[in-house]
This record gives sequence, structure tokens and C-alpha cells, in this order.
Amino acid sequence: MAAIRFEILGRSAVTGARVGRVETLHGGFDTPAFMPVGTKATVKGLLPDVVAGTGSEGLLNNTYHLMLRPGSGLIAEMGGVHRFMGWDGPILTDSGGFQVYSLSDARHIDEDGVTFRSHVDGAEERLTPERSVGIQNELGADIIMAFDDCPPAPVAGDGDAAAVDGSGRARHGVAAAEYDARNLAAAARTRRWLERCVAAHGRGDEQALFGIVQGGVDLELRARCAAEVAALDLAGYAIGGCAVGEDYRTMMEIVSHTAGMLPADRPRYLMGVGYERDLLAAVKAGVDMFDCVLPTRNGRNANAFTPTGQIRVRNAGYARDGGPIDAGCDCLTCERFSRAYLRHLFMADEMLGPILVSLHNIRHFQRLMLDIRRAIRDDSWSLVERNWPVTVSPPVSSDS
Amino acid sequence: MAAIRFEILGRSAVTGARVGRVETLHGGFDTPAFMPVGTKATVKGLLPDVVAGTGSEGLLNNTYHLMLRPGSGLIAEMGGVHRFMGWDGPILTDSGGFQVYSLSDARHIDEDGVTFRSHVDGAEERLTPERSVGIQNELGADIIMAFDDCPPAPVAGDGDAAAVDGSGRARHGVAAAEYDARNLAAAARTRRWLERCVAAHGRGDEQALFGIVQGGVDLELRARCAAEVAALDLAGYAIGGCAVGEDYRTMMEIVSHTAGMLPADRPRYLMGVGYERDLLAAVKAGVDMFDCVLPTRNGRNANAFTPTGQIRVRNAGYARDGGPIDAGCDCLTCERFSRAYLRHLFMADEMLGPILVSLHNIRHFQRLMLDIRRAIRDDSWSLVERNWPVTVSPPVSSDS
Repeated sequence: MAAIRFEILGRSAVTGARVGRVETLHGGFDTPAFMPVGTKATVKGLLPDVVAGTGSEGLLNNTYHLMLRPGSGLIAEMGGVHRFMGWDGPILTDSGGFQVYSLSDARHIDEDGVTFRSHVDGAEERLTPERSVGIQNELGADIIMAFDDCPPAPVAGDGDAAAVDGSGRARHGVAAAEYDARNLAAAARTRRWLERCVAAHGRGDEQALFGIVQGGVDLELRARCAAEVAALDLAGYAIGGCAVGEDYRTMMEIVSHTAGMLPADRPRYLMGVGYERDLLAAVKAGVDMFDCVLPTRNGRNANAFTPTGQIRVRNAGYARDGGPIDAGCDCLTCERFSRAYLRHLFMADEMLGPILVSLHNIRHFQRLMLDIRRAIRDDSWSLVERNWPVTVSPPVSSDS
Repeated sequence: MAAIRFEILGRSAVTGARVGRVETLHGGFDTPAFMPVGTKATVKGLLPDVVAGTGSEGLLNNTYHLMLRPGSGLIAEMGGVHRFMGWDGPILTDSGGFQVYSLSDARHIDEDGVTFRSHVDGAEERLTPERSVGIQNELGADIIMAFDDCPPAPVAGDGDAAAVDGSGRARHGVAAAEYDARNLAAAARTRRWLERCVAAHGRGDEQALFGIVQGGVDLELRARCAAEVAALDLAGYAIGGCAVGEDYRTMMEIVSHTAGMLPADRPRYLMGVGYERDLLAAVKAGVDMFDCVLPTRNGRNANAFTPTGQIRVRNAGYARDGGPIDAGCDCLTCERFSRAYLRHLFMADEMLGPILVSLHNIRHFQRLMLDIRRAIRDDSWSLVERNWPVTVSPPVSSDS
């Protein structure tokens, strides 16, 4: 029996978008789907029931963080990550690859895997394709990801300059002169590692393994990777290496170029993306799944999403504003609490501020996805763009 | 029309305890009642629905904190504190007196009021009986408290030694040699201020004003204060100046001595107390209402209450403990989450740790109050003591 089933329930006549549903052993989720991120087996500040109340059907945990603390063996002993964190719905774990490159120090990549220092305690750790899959088998998520080599985007200069990626994360780029060789090697290694991941996967009946397409900003290389990954019969396919420092136009070019090359009958997942505009464009290119830390991270920083853009809840102009963040939003925060109260909570450093704005922000993304799924069925794209002006406003390159 | 109604529904045959109900314009609460503290118009980390889910029917806000930030005028503009914080049930505000003495700097007491420096920004502020009541009228709580002069407990030595009170708060004591005069003056001033509070109260139809009995550790003075305060026809009466540094035995002597002197047909409120043992003893003395920060403050510090005492959730011994904090508890935390998960959340500095343990701790106190209310009806006190060994164990003088 396959660990997941994917059914396409409708297609746009004018774009590559499709609406469908993924079923796992822990329930299903409608696609295109947005998954909030529960890095350390918790969506920061939110009770599982509150997360479910935002309309989120599935979420993502980070293998890198959980392998370091509390350890995947401990989570396995506790009955797996669903039971550990009290989330009965679908869970996806990433492979740890992205975090190894973005968070850890002193990494050394060789053909077998990556050696790095834990950002928690500085201890030397190692991830290989086999170990990443083994850890993910222990965690027990419904969808697990192949371990990939994810190079940063090229930057002008010597490569030490920090770039800010599509989700606002600072990354150190690779000098343009070195980029091509590094990118080519990473793509080839990702493919070789994928075969090892497939071989190592021990719970195929319960967990669906997705392959990842790398290739950086090189469209020809992306096409080759997509063909090679698609040649393996996998439960789903992801586009990795986006939102790692490249500009918006480049990212969307990669996504629209790559998505159509992935098997049409399997879910397509754009990892770590992104802003509303990114989601809409990627859906039109045929992408079915997304995850991003934006709603929760920005929520903790008092940035609240609205259909016309983010607002800063700490703004003094909201001190006596009795209205909600977004009058059109049906979340608990907008139904019950004023901007004045939310501002007060942040000014007073009260936990409830991050909680309430995170909750709203996730619901904001889920409401957008609801409208997008509706638009796919009847091609009412102009309605989406009218209701969500932020999807057609200039791209956001970093947190406001 | 009176702002509150108090009905006594049953009495213990062998103790001074009574069970009843207080009705306000925002609903009622069963007594004896334990109110969690929402200092800055939020029970830290908990959505109002989550607070309600613990069985808490009423809660307390601190006037001192809200007058400094965001200001009572702003809250009045926003429709009052119920609407501001999204809590439709009964709310009680204290007068600010206790915090002026315990939190602020450079206070100067004169007959008219107290001048102090805000702990938020160092600005000079002033509270008088009229201003405290005016602020509480603006906040709009259902029960408001008279502005009192609350001296610290006597300590041996020069008065600079910090004592730890019954709720674990460090306080600077008064040297024994100076205590009597300070205490006598405070009691007399509290009585004079009470008359000014009564005269200043502008919303008697909507808000019930409670008087406060001071008198420190001097039982004779307590009796005189109680008689003087009881001579005024007030909606309820509080015992103040407890848990300010005196030892457990002294506190319970004051409470049992004072409670019986207060009008039997009005609610009696023991402010800022306390541990389970304190609550049980005070109920037996005839006290009907309590508030304390213990469940939330200790919850944030990973101390979880159980019927046999507090446990430290960070303890390494719980790393692989799949059981709940308390197998006998019916709270969301105990029903869904293991000690191992809670420990992980605290080790990883995740907000959900303080949230889940605060939630459990409040429910712990509400379950104790449920059992106490049952015991009052049928005098099954031995059952309470058997189910809650912590109520008969040696007193706790500070956080474990």
C-alpha cells in the first residue's frame, strides 16, 4: 500500500494549476496546501488545536533541529512525532539538508555526506542520505524528504556577502565565479544521494519519500535534474534551492520552468516559499504544496499580514485603533481583539502578542489558499488578485 | 441595583467554610473561587478561551500595571477591560496599592496618597484613593478594590533584608523596631482612605467596591480594622497584607482571626494567596475568594503543580517520561502531552512549554477548588486531604 494517495480534483483551463487532495495515514490535506512550520515539534506559541483552527491540515517539522534536540530516538520511543507533539494530522519532515547549510558551522561536504557543528552545543554531527532517512523514519512523519545538497545562490563579489532570500533569511552566497561548478556538483550529488535515500527508506508503507530537484539558477541543469528525479517512481517531487538568495524574477522563472517537468500525477512541493505573490505564481505553474516560516516568524515580530501588505502592530498609530488587523479576516484574533490590544501586548512584552498575530498570519495564508483553490476550479484569478492586492504588488525581498 | 449578588448555598458543619456564588454583570463564579492573575490584561500566554477551559470563571487584573501601560483612559476608550482583553466573565482589579509598595521605586507616602516612580520608564506617578478608584472605574472591572496602605512584614535586623512572601515574591521588610508604628499608621490610613474610595466611586451600579482590612501581624489591630471596615456597608471585604513576608503560621493565624469578624453575608477575599495548603485553611476559616500568580508564574518557570507537590519539568529524569504531569488531571496538557515533550519544549526555549504548564497549573488549582467546594457541602475534608496530600504537607515558603 502506498503511504499517500494524491487525487487531482480539478484543473485550471488557463494556467497550470490543479486542485486536489493528498491522503496520508494521519488524514489528508487539500491542495494547493500551505503548511505552517513547527520547527522543533511545535508551531511556536500555538496549541495544536489552535493551529488546526486556522484551517491548517498539515505541518512541517525540521529534522535538523529535532535530531539535535531532543533526538529522533527519543521521539521514536515516545511513539513518533505525531504523538509527541499532539498533532494527529499530516506531518512532513525536511531532510536536514537545508539547515545544515544555513544554520550550522564548519560544514564539510564529501561524497558520503556532510559533517557539521551543531548550532545548539557545537558538537560535531554528521548527516548522510542514510542517516537523514533513518532519522526521518524514527520521527515518523507522513511525508519525508530526500537528503539534498543545497547550494546558496550566486552573489556578485567574493561570496562573503550576505544575501536575503525569499523568506527573509540571510544567507551567505557563493561568488559568481565559483557558482557554476558548485551548483553542478550539488545537482549531481543530490541525484546520487536520492538513490541512496530510496534504498535506505525503511517505512515505505507508512511514509512517502519525496525527491528534490536542485540545479540552482541554471535552467538547463534544472531540466536535467527534473528528468533524472522524475525517472524514479516517487510519491512526490519537490523543487529545492529556491528562496536561497536569488531575486524574485529568477525564482519564479525556475519554478515555472521546473514544475511542468515533474510528473503530473504526483504532488509538487515548492520548499520554503514564500510570500503571497510567490504562492499564487507557483500555483499557476502547477505547484501543489508549500511551507514557510513567514506567518509565525513575522507574527512573533509583530508583523501582521493583510491582503494589502504587512502592518507593524507596534506602530504608535494603532495605540487607540479599535479595529482588527484585517476586517475581512475570520480568525480568532480578528474577531476578538483590536489592534490597540495587540499593540499593548507587544509593548508590554506579553506572549499573547506573538501568539495572536501568529495565529492570524497562518489563517491569512490559509484564507489565501482557500481562495486560490476556488480560483483553480472556476479560473476566477482576477477575483483572487482583487481580494488579495498583495499578490500583484511589487515583490517583497525581505521583512518589512 | 447592586453590582454583584452573593448567595451562600451551603455551609460546613464543622468548619467556617461556606459554598456559594457571586453574580456580576459579566456572569458569576462559584465560591470559594480561585482567580488566575492577568496582570497586564492577559493571563500570560493563554488565550481567553484556554483560561475559561481551565474552569476559571473570573480573573484579576492589576491596576498598577494597566495605569502605566497602556493607561486606563485608553482601555476605557476601547470599551473597558473586558472587551479590551476579550474576557466576557467577571474581572476584579486590585487598587494598585500592593504593587506601588512592592514594585515601584522612590515612593513617598503622605496622607493624601503615594508618589512613586514607574518601574516601566521611571516617570513620577501618583496614586490617591480617588485616583485609584477613578482608574478602576475607567478599567470597568466587576469588582474593584479600595486603595490601601500595605506595609511589609516585620523582619529581624535593619529592614533591608529581603523576605520571601507566601507567594514567593521577594519583599523588603521593616525592622521590627519600626514595625509597630508603621503598621498602626498604615491601618489607620487604610481606613481613612477607604472612606475616600467609597465617596469617589462613580459606578456603584456596575462595579462592586470591596474594602480591605490591614493590621499586619497584630491580631488586636486586625480586629479593630475588621470592625471599622465592616461598619461600612460594602459589597465585599478583603484581607490584605498577607503573604508579604510573614511565616505560614502567622499568616493563617491572621486569616482565621480576621475572616470570622467580617460580615457573614458578604464575600470574603484573601488577596494574593497562595499555595494549596493556604487555600484550604483559609476556606475553613470562611474565606470565599482568592487570587494568586503562582500557577502562571511557576508554570513559566517549568514548575508544575501536582497533588503531591511541584515537579520541575526541566528535570533530566523526565527526558523519556511518556506520562503526563499528573495522571489524575483532566487538563488539555495532561490529556495530550508527556513530561518528555514538556521538558523538550523548555529545553528548546519554546513558548508552548510555559503555555502548557501554566494551563495545567491553573486547572490544578481549579480542580482543588472543585473538591473543596464539594467538601464544604458534605464535610468530606479527609477526602480532600487524601486526594491533595500537598494541602497537609509542610508549608512551602518559596518556589522550589
